[in-house]
Amino acid sequence: MDEVNVLELAESIGQQLKDKKFRDLRTLLEEINPIDIAEVFDELEAEECVILFRLLKKDKAAEVFSYASSARQKDIVGAIHESLLNYIIDELYFDDKIDFLEEMPANFVKQVIAAASQEERGLINQFLNFKENSAGSLMTIEYVHLGREMTVREALDKIKSVGMEKETVYTCYVLDRARRLEGIVSLRKLVLSEDDVMIADIMTESVVHCETGDDQEDVADLFKKYGFMALPVVDAENRMIGIITIDDIVDVIEQENTEDFQKMAAIAPSDDEYMDTGAVTLARRRMPWLMILMISAIFTGSIISHYEELLGTMVTLAAFIPLLMDTGGNAGSQSSTLIIRGIALGEIERRDWPRILWKEFRVSLLCGAALAGVNILRMIVVTGAPLGVIITVNATLIITLIIAKMVGSMLPLVAKLCRLDPAIMAAPLITTIVDALALFIYFGIASVLLFNM
Amino acid sequence: MDEVNVLELAESIGQQLKDKKFRDLRTLLEEINPIDIAEVFDELEAEECVILFRLLKKDKAAEVFSYASSARQKDIVGAIHESLLNYIIDELYFDDKIDFLEEMPANFVKQVIAAASQEERGLINQFLNFKENSAGSLMTIEYVHLGREMTVREALDKIKSVGMEKETVYTCYVLDRARRLEGIVSLRKLVLSEDDVMIADIMTESVVHCETGDDQEDVADLFKKYGFMALPVVDAENRMIGIITIDDIVDVIEQENTEDFQKMAAIAPSDDEYMDTGAVTLARRRMPWLMILMISAIFTGSIISHYEELLGTMVTLAAFIPLLMDTGGNAGSQSSTLIIRGIALGEIERRDWPRILWKEFRVSLLCGAALAGVNILRMIVVTGAPLGVIITVNATLIITLIIAKMVGSMLPLVAKLCRLDPAIMAAPLITTIVDALALFIYFGIASVLLFNM
Repeated sequence: MDEVNVLELAESIGQQLKDKKFRDLRTLLEEINPIDIAEVFDELEAEECVILFRLLKKDKAAEVFSYASSARQKDIVGAIHESLLNYIIDELYFDDKIDFLEEMPANFVKQVIAAASQEERGLINQFLNFKENSAGSLMTIEYVHLGREMTVREALDKIKSVGMEKETVYTCYVLDRARRLEGIVSLRKLVLSEDDVMIADIMTESVVHCETGDDQEDVADLFKKYGFMALPVVDAENRMIGIITIDDIVDVIEQENTEDFQKMAAIAPSDDEYMDTGAVTLARRRMPWLMILMISAIFTGSIISHYEELLGTMVTLAAFIPLLMDTGGNAGSQSSTLIIRGIALGEIERRDWPRILWKEFRVSLLCGAALAGVNILRMIVVTGAPLGVIITVNATLIITLIIAKMVGSMLPLVAKLCRLDPAIMAAPLITTIVDALALFIYFGIASVLLFNM
Repeated sequence: MDEVNVLELAESIGQQLKDKKFRDLRTLLEEINPIDIAEVFDELEAEECVILFRLLKKDKAAEVFSYASSARQKDIVGAIHESLLNYIIDELYFDDKIDFLEEMPANFVKQVIAAASQEERGLINQFLNFKENSAGSLMTIEYVHLGREMTVREALDKIKSVGMEKETVYTCYVLDRARRLEGIVSLRKLVLSEDDVMIADIMTESVVHCETGDDQEDVADLFKKYGFMALPVVDAENRMIGIITIDDIVDVIEQENTEDFQKMAAIAPSDDEYMDTGAVTLARRRMPWLMILMISAIFTGSIISHYEELLGTMVTLAAFIPLLMDTGGNAGSQSSTLIIRGIALGEIERRDWPRILWKEFRVSLLCGAALAGVNILRMIVVTGAPLGVIITVNATLIITLIIAKMVGSMLPLVAKLCRLDPAIMAAPLITTIVDALALFIYFGIASVLLFNM
């Protein structure tokens, strides 16, 4: 793979900076992809980045800036000349500009808005107000729009004259006078058509689109299903506002997956990178669920307290508590993870629940039999435990496994039914619930079986 | 959102099929997106799909076929006329053709290969041999290649004549006589350039590319980093073999995430959809880890056995076992999940380990203090436990939390160091390790503190 090794590059650039080889650096930077330069920035000190940034040509500087992390953007903004800064802000694609402004202090944003044209001023204000994680917040306004009366030649000429400033020219949007979306036509179709064909004759009229308030996860699902490169966004009156491009959707998919991973580990979800987040913030995101789960575990403990007398006469029962709790928890989380993921990918629907239950029942019987088999063998050969204990432990093991897989597979569906995120019904919560059930069954069987023997 | 409701559509189509309204159906099908028709197929019986499929026009039939699930493809293959089948196979993009053949019985594949042209025969055999999850297995051969001596006009004419059959025309590849990759040029640049400009003058020469054997996860990382729409694939002699397009990468990203979710829940990873997988297969994928973790839990249990005497004289200690085990496991999995995800997204490197350790230490102190605070209060107010027990339980709680977060955050990095997948160091394994440590600390403190009081 011909990818640049960013770490090595950063090291060599850092050395050249120390040696003040600015001319060599200037030549070197010209050859490096702006995305790689932005990544090198993350490996260097703020002051080094500012020096490097000043060595870049104006156009490349603007590109590197658009890819830089928001921390680095702030460093650069504070250190470069106002005229260069204005040039850079002007060059940014509108969605990158909004992302940048969202991270800057209010004062700075006010200055930028004041300096913008009247039309852009309104747009910036509108875009800054879109809800986080909505289609509006992903959108850019740099798209090519055509009229249905145009010919292919006229359309290509228009693309030639405005295309340089647009984020994509590969899909063009056909709008009527009121900017309502009438259809789309791909650049591919334009290039493959004869010059005098009318746009109206080659455009696709039924266009999948979304509205500014739609959730980004739903938008990503549309991209995944239809394989779009770009999707138009309209307002409540069906007027076209902007487009969302697939490169931003790739980020959305990873972000949504990250949130699911976090929720499933009982952490309040967040987009922030781990290394950029302070200990107090991290603790605050982890505390609520740890507290809830600890309090649940106290209740689980009270089951043991309830059977303290029984346990006192047969302390050996305590040694099997970890086995029953852990195995039940693991079996339950396996099921819940598969169901949560299936729901997220749209492979599992609510109406599938009877088939899931039946499937999980058979899986749990198979797993239960195998695990209990091994465990019985071990108890007989290694520990020589009394028959009553062997029966109690392994009956509990099998029953716990069955219940764990039922509960684990059904709770995510129940969550979906209650319009909650299925991801909260993951390992930690399932484990706590199954632990309590396992102990309850364990001591229930023990008190009947062992006290009557 | 103007997305089609597949369930409603399937129901109405199913009804019309029962009523034998074939003419209406034919008209209806013409208006529906082939992707939606393929999804409707998943909701209907095999026989219904075959009837529907026969109602489609030839071109649309080929498109619907390419989007259909492999189960439905098999149903259709078994039921349509050979001439239509040959037409469809011929129309498929090469990557879709390979995906289709991979799912078909060997006999059928042999027939298709025998019927193919000699050139294609070699290609099919080569592509069927690419390792699953390699760049080669994602690749298609339908790309536009140009020569460096061409003018923009000649290039556009070439695109016009061959573009219809290509998967993408938006990036064109400049090859020399030996098919070595010399550069790329985007359709955007072609359209925006004057007719008589030479390709050599506008092409980008340093091209990021991958090799056929590269892992699909690394390829996806390149797309994410650089925002590509397509990536060229070359062989060991730098000769161009094919391209990978972003729509396939979106699937790869979801597939890799699914595998991580499965590994982190102690399940052997697989691409198969849950609903399409039988109980025995599901059980086989879950059994190995359940068994390993059960055996570990038996060792954890032996810690309790070791302190049976102590526990016998103070059975009340047993009631706190769930609290300590669960809280430790949850705290550890929170840390391991964040680190595993950070590694997967390239945000965390091995060299970050001292900063991570220090951060997790502070987080665990904060969480430990808060949880112990609540727990002490409860133990005093609700249960009125003796001071020695209160100290033992809560000292264990805090120490366990610290150790859990250290272990949880470091083990994924250790796995990466040993070239193992960090995702295996997730909740189930961390929980088992932390459980054992928690009990060890618990009884250690108890035997010192409570026997000396």
